[in-house]
Amino acid sequence: MTAETICHTLLSQFPTVNFNQESLPFVDSLDKVEAAVGEINRAAASSGLAPLVFTTFVEEEYAVVLSRANARIFDLFDPFIGRMEESLGQKSSHQPGQAHGIANILQYNRRMSAVNYAMHCDDGLHTQEYGSADVILLGVSRSGKTPTCLYLALHFGFHVANYPLTQDDFVHGRLPESILVHRDKAFGLNIDASRLHQIRQERRPGSEYASLKQCREDVELARNLFERYRIQHCDSTSYSIEELGSTIKHQMGLHSELY
Amino acid sequence: MTAETICHTLLSQFPTVNFNQESLPFVDSLDKVEAAVGEINRAAASSGLAPLVFTTFVEEEYAVVLSRANARIFDLFDPFIGRMEESLGQKSSHQPGQAHGIANILQYNRRMSAVNYAMHCDDGLHTQEYGSADVILLGVSRSGKTPTCLYLALHFGFHVANYPLTQDDFVHGRLPESILVHRDKAFGLNIDASRLHQIRQERRPGSEYASLKQCREDVELARNLFERYRIQHCDSTSYSIEELGSTIKHQMGLHSELY
Repeated sequence: MTAETICHTLLSQFPTVNFNQESLPFVDSLDKVEAAVGEINRAAASSGLAPLVFTTFVEEEYAVVLSRANARIFDLFDPFIGRMEESLGQKSSHQPGQAHGIANILQYNRRMSAVNYAMHCDDGLHTQEYGSADVILLGVSRSGKTPTCLYLALHFGFHVANYPLTQDDFVHGRLPESILVHRDKAFGLNIDASRLHQIRQERRPGSEYASLKQCREDVELARNLFERYRIQHCDSTSYSIEELGSTIKHQMGLHSELY
Repeated sequence: MTAETICHTLLSQFPTVNFNQESLPFVDSLDKVEAAVGEINRAAASSGLAPLVFTTFVEEEYAVVLSRANARIFDLFDPFIGRMEESLGQKSSHQPGQAHGIANILQYNRRMSAVNYAMHCDDGLHTQEYGSADVILLGVSRSGKTPTCLYLALHFGFHVANYPLTQDDFVHGRLPESILVHRDKAFGLNIDASRLHQIRQERRPGSEYASLKQCREDVELARNLFERYRIQHCDSTSYSIEELGSTIKHQMGLHSELY
């Protein structure tokens, strides 16, 4: 996926160009490289344009075969590996990375266990298992807790629970004991009230729950709780799930064992 | 996250180097760039080595400030943007990408809805809602269905259900009607029997369920079902969740609306 993610970012730098994107995953044999060349050449012929082709080959022979295609080739690693070799004073291994592979059973188990934990402890369920959490995400309904937890689990293998702050917590002005005993693992997600209003409107249009007034109140009460208990928090409004995940990892001082 | 993922792959090309990795997310103001320079210089001073710094700045002024750090700077976009501008005959926008942002409400809703769907239709639940699936993943217990579904939901915004093949399906030698009516959306995950045995051993050590014999049988029966019903399938054993996700997207001819 690395190549695909980077490509999307690169292509998004040319917002007026309407790219026709195709991904060719698992090009991991010379036969498949030949087939890819055929596919690229057909695309070139039918469009009359040389396709931009982004690759992450570490095998030099694949790159040689691909270079025969009627295309502009962008090797996503090549510009860096040489300078890294020079900086580090050693040659690279030229091995494809398998950081996340099911091929790597330990890492796979860690991710599986993290995903199971996130689902098991989603939305305030099983608070008695907060002892094994790396992070407990707190936030009002629809502040982005669940996708952020799943991202942290899948991407880094962290055990992340999430707990929805509700009227109950606000009325008492106090967090439940299950969280207080693990306060050092808690992290708050907040969100702009009008954005929250938009998101909740999708779910329950016209409801009291989705009203701007209610959203403002919820967001304000959540912030008060985070501040009273000195819980680290951030505003999710203008960040992507990936950015939120990265911020939480950084602010909580977590290190992933997947890498 | 783009930068972090690419970096991990690049660093993994130097397996004998023990890198001390730090990420500095959200360096999105000149003040933060200055702070990053301070942090990099402290790391350089304490290690006696110039850190390798990977960046994805699109703002040129940030790059200028960062270039004062005692570090080797690797701009992850710079080597490509120039050649892309030349190939496309136009200048890039130099805007940071926000493809996944909560900032982008439509895309955020799509991802949220996909994550909710994946959780709602996990492990054979709510088969009556397969009508709105993009993909229905089939496979034996512990073949990697749940993390693959969540990845497809989070990363591409696809609605992916998963259904566990069990003795019940094998005894009847037939898939349930809820799947047969949506056979064109079905995709099978298979896995090497000895790998499955390892994974199941983690979960229920010494059980009949985890025995190599049972795993061999399950895998074989699953393959028979995929073949009888001509369901596209792949072997998840040596692939990462990212690679599986990308393969399923490609083989099922799906296009993500997140990009």
